[in-house]
Amino acid sequence: MKKKILVVSAHPEPRSLNAALAKFAVDHLSAAGREVQLSDLYAMKWNPTVDTDDYPDHGSAGGAARRLHVMRDSEEATLAGRLAPDIAAEQEKIRWSDAVVFQFPMWWFSAPAILKGWIDRVFTSGFAYGPKVPPPYDDTAGALAGRRALLSVTLGARETAFSDRGIHGRLTDVLHPLQHGLFWFTGMTPLEPFAVYDTDRMPADRYAPALEAYARRLDALFTDPPVPYRTLTGGDYDHDMRLLPGREREGTTGLDLHTYPDPAPHSGVSR
Amino acid sequence: MKKKILVVSAHPEPRSLNAALAKFAVDHLSAAGREVQLSDLYAMKWNPTVDTDDYPDHGSAGGAARRLHVMRDSEEATLAGRLAPDIAAEQEKIRWSDAVVFQFPMWWFSAPAILKGWIDRVFTSGFAYGPKVPPPYDDTAGALAGRRALLSVTLGARETAFSDRGIHGRLTDVLHPLQHGLFWFTGMTPLEPFAVYDTDRMPADRYAPALEAYARRLDALFTDPPVPYRTLTGGDYDHDMRLLPGREREGTTGLDLHTYPDPAPHSGVSR
Repeated sequence: MKKKILVVSAHPEPRSLNAALAKFAVDHLSAAGREVQLSDLYAMKWNPTVDTDDYPDHGSAGGAARRLHVMRDSEEATLAGRLAPDIAAEQEKIRWSDAVVFQFPMWWFSAPAILKGWIDRVFTSGFAYGPKVPPPYDDTAGALAGRRALLSVTLGARETAFSDRGIHGRLTDVLHPLQHGLFWFTGMTPLEPFAVYDTDRMPADRYAPALEAYARRLDALFTDPPVPYRTLTGGDYDHDMRLLPGREREGTTGLDLHTYPDPAPHSGVSR
Repeated sequence: MKKKILVVSAHPEPRSLNAALAKFAVDHLSAAGREVQLSDLYAMKWNPTVDTDDYPDHGSAGGAARRLHVMRDSEEATLAGRLAPDIAAEQEKIRWSDAVVFQFPMWWFSAPAILKGWIDRVFTSGFAYGPKVPPPYDDTAGALAGRRALLSVTLGARETAFSDRGIHGRLTDVLHPLQHGLFWFTGMTPLEPFAVYDTDRMPADRYAPALEAYARRLDALFTDPPVPYRTLTGGDYDHDMRLLPGREREGTTGLDLHTYPDPAPHSGVSR
């Protein structure tokens, strides 16, 4: 079976480094015998704003419009197969995929709004999480388990500013909401991000080394070891979702608590 | 002089807890003698997507459309006073303000896309940062220095899951891209966030305690001690923007490196 990969790209300029990286991923993976789909969010004119139109049945039962509860209404629409067609189409691409790649420029230390709105609208309760799906933070049983996830990010700043002692914070910490909060939460298997630094006004003749480095990461999409996040179901957390005492290496604090101090014992590696 | 506060609110349902908190902030601050403006992003049908239309002069010089460089083009448009009117109007509200309050539900461990897109489009180079404005991470000289900043967030999860050992990560770490990356970077003075937990399908009769707690935070908007982030210009960082050795308490790692281990020596406190 050919491995299937969904590339999601978010940059307004078709001649940008981001567009070049997205096109390169599609071409390179296809040439390697993968099946690839591309969601080019700007080209699709993706609507980023969660609203009642996302759930066509919302409020149709009564006279006055029913109060919108985003989680409840998105879940009901998902389970009834009654989501807006643009959302349903993107969910189908994720279901189809064995891996998801996000290509975006870091804007204000997170994804551009058009990509955030793809996440907000597509990762509904009932699809990516929720009471009717398996518990979060488990890559063997989670709602979207069995899928690898790779962030490919361009950054205007230099790498030192995102290094261990860099003022912007470590890249892994800045990307935590996506890596752990989105991918790992939903059962996907996040890899270390691929990052190109110092990209402000980068001329096209500097693209080649970035593409070459990216090729190596794409080749290892299904073999690179994932980020060794702890599973919720692995016995490390209490009923209030707090890490039990003594599970970490002494002195560990903050987000580092939620990775295994040694290579991950869970099964994501071998996929 | 009356203190001036801009409240930015991002929820699609006018009967939601978020809408109630935003309205409460406007009313409570006004009753206390403050001047208040509200940017209700859903009511304004705010466009979250950065695009060439944001910079009306883009590409007008030549025949074929010029390649879009978001940072360069946003900066040129900002300095020339030629930004799209919806962006210019929001910048004017920020310039007018002594404090900014963001009201939003945590969606996927960050702001809803409509708010992210307000940030992406409004905080342009030349306005909030850039070569023609003072260096970042300095609340005495930064581009938007002199403004306090408060996040007011609702979360479906329980507080324990965002506690020191909670699986979602500490709230302060999850909000780092906004607190440090947006507010502190641009010279604003961020306070500890105000958070209401366990809000999934919260009935309106449970709003009262949340509003009461919020009132105390709003009353202290100009007196609460800010988050003691380190300034870039205070001598703690090298030329590559890395924290110099020995500045932190022993064993400190990750995002905690970038707060002073003792009360902040900088001047933001007294505003």
